[in-house]
Amino acid sequence: MTKLLLKGGEVLCADGQIRTVDVAIADSVVAQVGNVDSTWMAEQIIDCKDKLILPGFVNTHTHAAMTLLRSYADDMKLMDWLENRIWPAEDNLTGEDVYWGTMLAIAEMIKTGTTTFADMYFFMPEVAKAVSESGIRAVLARGMVGVAPTADKSLTESEEFYNEWNNACDGRITVMLGPHAPYTCPPEYLKKVISLAERLGAEIHIHLAETAGEVAECIKQYGMSPIALMKKVGLFDFGTLAAHCVHISPEDISILREKGVRVAHNPGSNMKLASGVAPVPDMLEAKICVGLGTDGAASNNNLDMLEEIRLAAMLHKVHRLDPLAVPAATAIDMATVQGIQALNLDKLGKIEVGYKADITVFDMQNPHWYPRHDRLSLLVYAAQGNDVHTVIVNGKILLNNRQLTMIDEERLFRELQIRGMKLVSNINK
Amino acid sequence: MTKLLLKGGEVLCADGQIRTVDVAIADSVVAQVGNVDSTWMAEQIIDCKDKLILPGFVNTHTHAAMTLLRSYADDMKLMDWLENRIWPAEDNLTGEDVYWGTMLAIAEMIKTGTTTFADMYFFMPEVAKAVSESGIRAVLARGMVGVAPTADKSLTESEEFYNEWNNACDGRITVMLGPHAPYTCPPEYLKKVISLAERLGAEIHIHLAETAGEVAECIKQYGMSPIALMKKVGLFDFGTLAAHCVHISPEDISILREKGVRVAHNPGSNMKLASGVAPVPDMLEAKICVGLGTDGAASNNNLDMLEEIRLAAMLHKVHRLDPLAVPAATAIDMATVQGIQALNLDKLGKIEVGYKADITVFDMQNPHWYPRHDRLSLLVYAAQGNDVHTVIVNGKILLNNRQLTMIDEERLFRELQIRGMKLVSNINK
Ligand SMILES: [Zn+2]
Ligand SMILES: [Zn+2]
Repeated sequence: MTKLLLKGGEVLCADGQIRTVDVAIADSVVAQVGNVDSTWMAEQIIDCKDKLILPGFVNTHTHAAMTLLRSYADDMKLMDWLENRIWPAEDNLTGEDVYWGTMLAIAEMIKTGTTTFADMYFFMPEVAKAVSESGIRAVLARGMVGVAPTADKSLTESEEFYNEWNNACDGRITVMLGPHAPYTCPPEYLKKVISLAERLGAEIHIHLAETAGEVAECIKQYGMSPIALMKKVGLFDFGTLAAHCVHISPEDISILREKGVRVAHNPGSNMKLASGVAPVPDMLEAKICVGLGTDGAASNNNLDMLEEIRLAAMLHKVHRLDPLAVPAATAIDMATVQGIQALNLDKLGKIEVGYKADITVFDMQNPHWYPRHDRLSLLVYAAQGNDVHTVIVNGKILLNNRQLTMIDEERLFRELQIRGMKLVSNINK
Repeated sequence: MTKLLLKGGEVLCADGQIRTVDVAIADSVVAQVGNVDSTWMAEQIIDCKDKLILPGFVNTHTHAAMTLLRSYADDMKLMDWLENRIWPAEDNLTGEDVYWGTMLAIAEMIKTGTTTFADMYFFMPEVAKAVSESGIRAVLARGMVGVAPTADKSLTESEEFYNEWNNACDGRITVMLGPHAPYTCPPEYLKKVISLAERLGAEIHIHLAETAGEVAECIKQYGMSPIALMKKVGLFDFGTLAAHCVHISPEDISILREKGVRVAHNPGSNMKLASGVAPVPDMLEAKICVGLGTDGAASNNNLDMLEEIRLAAMLHKVHRLDPLAVPAATAIDMATVQGIQALNLDKLGKIEVGYKADITVFDMQNPHWYPRHDRLSLLVYAAQGNDVHTVIVNGKILLNNRQLTMIDEERLFRELQIRGMKLVSNINK
């Protein structure tokens, strides 16, 4: 048994209170939270004085390898951006590119306190390889586009990928099915996805109601909203994670609640792409589970969950003209407890005995952490992702005093620079 | 003459282009931008490989000492927040508190790349002392409340403060007059302020049209908007910096343009306090100068200008549903060139020969800076305030490899913690 001890930090406990206590970790699990005595013979002790200890953040929606296109195309109209920049560049992607792009994303996520992410992309075995090697936790889905020539092949690949990787790496990897969106996957195709989900016992990760245009088009074509259409098609019957849900009606919210759909809210992406503001306070009031996500780095342009936490707490205040909308503690709950629930994971999201040890330690030795009237308020409204000092996933230290333990950053930066430039070299700006 | 050399960095040049060049600094001024040869015998050479060099950020509106109340009261209705928390705490403030609170704010600003700030508060000689000792640049105004018993005293103090500190510290400090707002300073009082401004040759820093309630009340009482009222009273006749301007009409925008009023836009504060969204794209289109500000740390809750840059670039996109609203380069211009113009300063805001050497150097060795398709996009949408590596003000290094050169951080943290707690100890929550 490997024993680890976080000594004397200020811990966000499972009841939402912050206490100065020790956290003892045995192998992959939290063994004690409290005053850990000297009979606990830890192999490694981390001094957590002046540090804030939280459950690791959960990024419920991203396309990790899109880091390769970070800063390539910004401040553009959506279709211009997709058709003339993103899609042509993605056509050039190789499996190796996806591996390296994902690895950079993982490095960035670990360094900003994320311990679990949900990904939808392609070349997914390469993504799984990066997750496996880096030590992070992930819920992976092979993106499927029903209107593409690869539609049927991607169903087969999804099944193979599920069989090979679901519950792999000590349970660090689970697999979902990833039909991209209603506007790229017609009902007949979605029915194939649903029957595969039922057969495998897999859940579904999909984009829903991201833009007003998409919703209008769906109503025109099918006489109902994307949410209503998905219910009719049966997409919500076996567990669903729905990204965005920006343009939704009260009826849509009733459907989401009734069917237990979990939502991935991406405030940064929605702001930058000018998609709109999701009715998050209404969804929370309806007791819908709402996690937070960064979306891909091409539309954000970072994978820093602390920024999403802050935006979740600030965007809805100004949008509703209500300073009480999405308080600090709620935003943190969305990034931890609700994030885990959104991904259908268990024994995660809290620092509690018997829970998996996925933990993020913030260093509070910086001017923006003073004075300390309220640590959660400081975290949400003043801290920076780079304040993260130590990160533990499944009981293993992945970031130690800001140094990545499993990833060679220099190599990573070199690969990304070369591969990123190459991807776009034959695209006319 | 003190000679300094920034060697081989990627410099945001005055024409908006980024070039790999050297920057030579002689005393307080930029002496060369380009290939600086070996005849330039620098006392200190900073290796800027893999670093991005920018003009220092300009925070055009804050109340620095309010760091003391950071995280004390959040997620509350405005009047509840002011009446039951902020004002009672401010009643307890001493001059020493203001000195230390300001010094913490300065430390935070320097560490996140700000080289100039505009402050409005009280105990201003203490603020000036902190500015003097720390080496930062500031435009200071003693806040004046016309309806308070101290109304006349604060006019006298403002005059004394102007005479003692305007153009002090090698010109690092300039002074404005700071009538708080139309709803706390009736027209008769503002007229006294205006005649003092005219007599001294001082400009005015004021809050205008921050909330919908304030505007409605002004229309009810005076039959016109705060902006129209200020024009009528003559407040715009000798140079004015107006913070917020959230709830303004097209007619108000015409007045601001006609009178050359410069605006301090505070997106973070406006979001967190749920004040509303200022019509920044319209103001920019009308060629009104719009700088960026953090407002006080009690309503933000940090002094990180990079966050304001990002929010300025993202909030207006989602609010207008226009992904082209406030592009990255515009947001940077607001935080540098327009910020300097907003504060009526000269030979600042650009890295150009003959300009004052106020410079911020970002370290790009972090995952979120890769790949580098577009460095300005990376800065605006992906970077963190903590990525700042070196900061120079008036030719002097204030931050060296993330270490403050003029400020004892440990002492500062200790003082802030004690003073912050003491301030609120007798206030019932
Ligand atoms: Zn997405
Ligand atoms: Zn203010």
